[in-house]
Amino acid sequence: MSYEDIKAAALRIAPFVRRTPTIKLEHCAGFDLRNDFHLKLECLQVSGSFKIRGAANRVRSLPPERIQRGLVAASGGNHGLATAYMAHQSGVPATIFLPSNASPIKEEKLRRWGAEVRRAGNVWDEAQEAALAFAERQGAFCMHPFADEAIVSGQGTVALEMVEQLPEADLYIVAIGGGGLIAGMSQVIKTVNPKARIIGVEPVGSPTLRACFDAGRVVRLAEVTTRVATMACGRTDEGIYEIARRNVDDIVLVDDDAMQRAAALLWFEFGIAADLSGAASLAAVMSGALVPPPGARIAGLVCGSGVDGFNA
Amino acid sequence: MSYEDIKAAALRIAPFVRRTPTIKLEHCAGFDLRNDFHLKLECLQVSGSFKIRGAANRVRSLPPERIQRGLVAASGGNHGLATAYMAHQSGVPATIFLPSNASPIKEEKLRRWGAEVRRAGNVWDEAQEAALAFAERQGAFCMHPFADEAIVSGQGTVALEMVEQLPEADLYIVAIGGGGLIAGMSQVIKTVNPKARIIGVEPVGSPTLRACFDAGRVVRLAEVTTRVATMACGRTDEGIYEIARRNVDDIVLVDDDAMQRAAALLWFEFGIAADLSGAASLAAVMSGALVPPPGARIAGLVCGSGVDGFNA
Repeated sequence: MSYEDIKAAALRIAPFVRRTPTIKLEHCAGFDLRNDFHLKLECLQVSGSFKIRGAANRVRSLPPERIQRGLVAASGGNHGLATAYMAHQSGVPATIFLPSNASPIKEEKLRRWGAEVRRAGNVWDEAQEAALAFAERQGAFCMHPFADEAIVSGQGTVALEMVEQLPEADLYIVAIGGGGLIAGMSQVIKTVNPKARIIGVEPVGSPTLRACFDAGRVVRLAEVTTRVATMACGRTDEGIYEIARRNVDDIVLVDDDAMQRAAALLWFEFGIAADLSGAASLAAVMSGALVPPPGARIAGLVCGSGVDGFNA
Repeated sequence: MSYEDIKAAALRIAPFVRRTPTIKLEHCAGFDLRNDFHLKLECLQVSGSFKIRGAANRVRSLPPERIQRGLVAASGGNHGLATAYMAHQSGVPATIFLPSNASPIKEEKLRRWGAEVRRAGNVWDEAQEAALAFAERQGAFCMHPFADEAIVSGQGTVALEMVEQLPEADLYIVAIGGGGLIAGMSQVIKTVNPKARIIGVEPVGSPTLRACFDAGRVVRLAEVTTRVATMACGRTDEGIYEIARRNVDDIVLVDDDAMQRAAALLWFEFGIAADLSGAASLAAVMSGALVPPPGARIAGLVCGSGVDGFNA
């Protein structure tokens, strides 16, 4: 999965995604930001997150007849919404499998895009198993949230915009769930701006890639305890690990409360309605987990929208 | 109050405001937008709205000793927050007078900026009377929300950014409360982009400037029935009316529910957390109150942030 694949993905998904703006974090009364810090507001993206990029690239890379019997995904979060949106726009049915702990708000959003929602299992793996079995029976297409080159290439397109919008950035901070986003983005950043450093952020309760980096191979976490659903993942994919190992300079861990505080600050001081993963890049700096070098110009990604900052 | 005054204001307020981004409204499943429609996201501004621009310009145009005994404002809304923020940043006390119907959420935000909040009267005029009397007693400075050239010049600075960011716009749509925002903006737009049309939007239940336009002079509304607090105003100011009469091409009326629907669409499809006035420019088009000419490129302003679109 190369830079050229990601450029091709950008053309393929253009009819479905919007170019999201960036904002400089300045005049912040609640936290003393010592570095230039710009955020790309992917929370304003179609379907509420970057996930539409991968989903659109996946769907538009298939022959139309392959999706005629519908799209299927297992996701309690943004990937499910992106899948439902693409099905809606493609005029085919969507069936989304949710683990039992998925949020009712998300479920209602899924229904508003016309998706059929089914509860299956208690964790994502069980929902995914049900989704695969269902897709097989129906002849529908099952969209994996990250272990798929077309998905990763699509997610990478957000970095094509960032390197244009923030050409002077020398430190990129990206939240990690399964790792598809940072893998795709890192291929772009290391091609266009090879001197820039790329830092991943994971929850203390789901150090998916951190554990792989430490072990020197893909490992499965013994347990996932974060409450941040969009960043909870027991095991990444080999292909993603290989890309991340090559391109990602470091991975820092933040606890859920640090993301909560960052989301609250984004809402109170900036009017940005982020989900917890959307606040992760700011949380990495606010919490001290990442201490940027003086003068480093930071580009962070608000990867998803949500109301997590409202009641802090 | 000239274009040059507004340019001077922009320099004066630069240490307090941020440059807010714009976004193109595209890929909208819930409404068929036939025109290019860009929104400036002033909902991401310091203090939550454009009001900081006027407040910062007012405060920074005064000799420092004039505000030493504090800032005072009567406002159940964004002007109060902007005043509280400027007091906080200037290290002086703020006292904000709220009419009895002001929202408790807003009151809590005011306290978070360190303001003292007092309830006074049932409508804005009564709160303003109390604010003026208090300021007089204390030797504090009372910030009028619109009948003040420094305030209007400050609000106008948002248009300096818009004409740069959206140079091809030929139709500007701006929400009206007291009229200070549209007056300031119109001075910029008619100077830089004189062929562009400027359309004001008022609630059916508070046609403040529409009534003046119809009467050919400043009139006081017999009653104000809108529930949109930031757009409720019984009477504008003579100076503002004169500018608006010269520069504003038309004023359309939308009902509160149309703004509610537009706010819901902005949240659901775009992740934009707007207050009802922030959704007014889109509401004007969605409701059909304004039918833009085919091909007209629209620039709208999301003038304030809020959660009005969340529970529609």
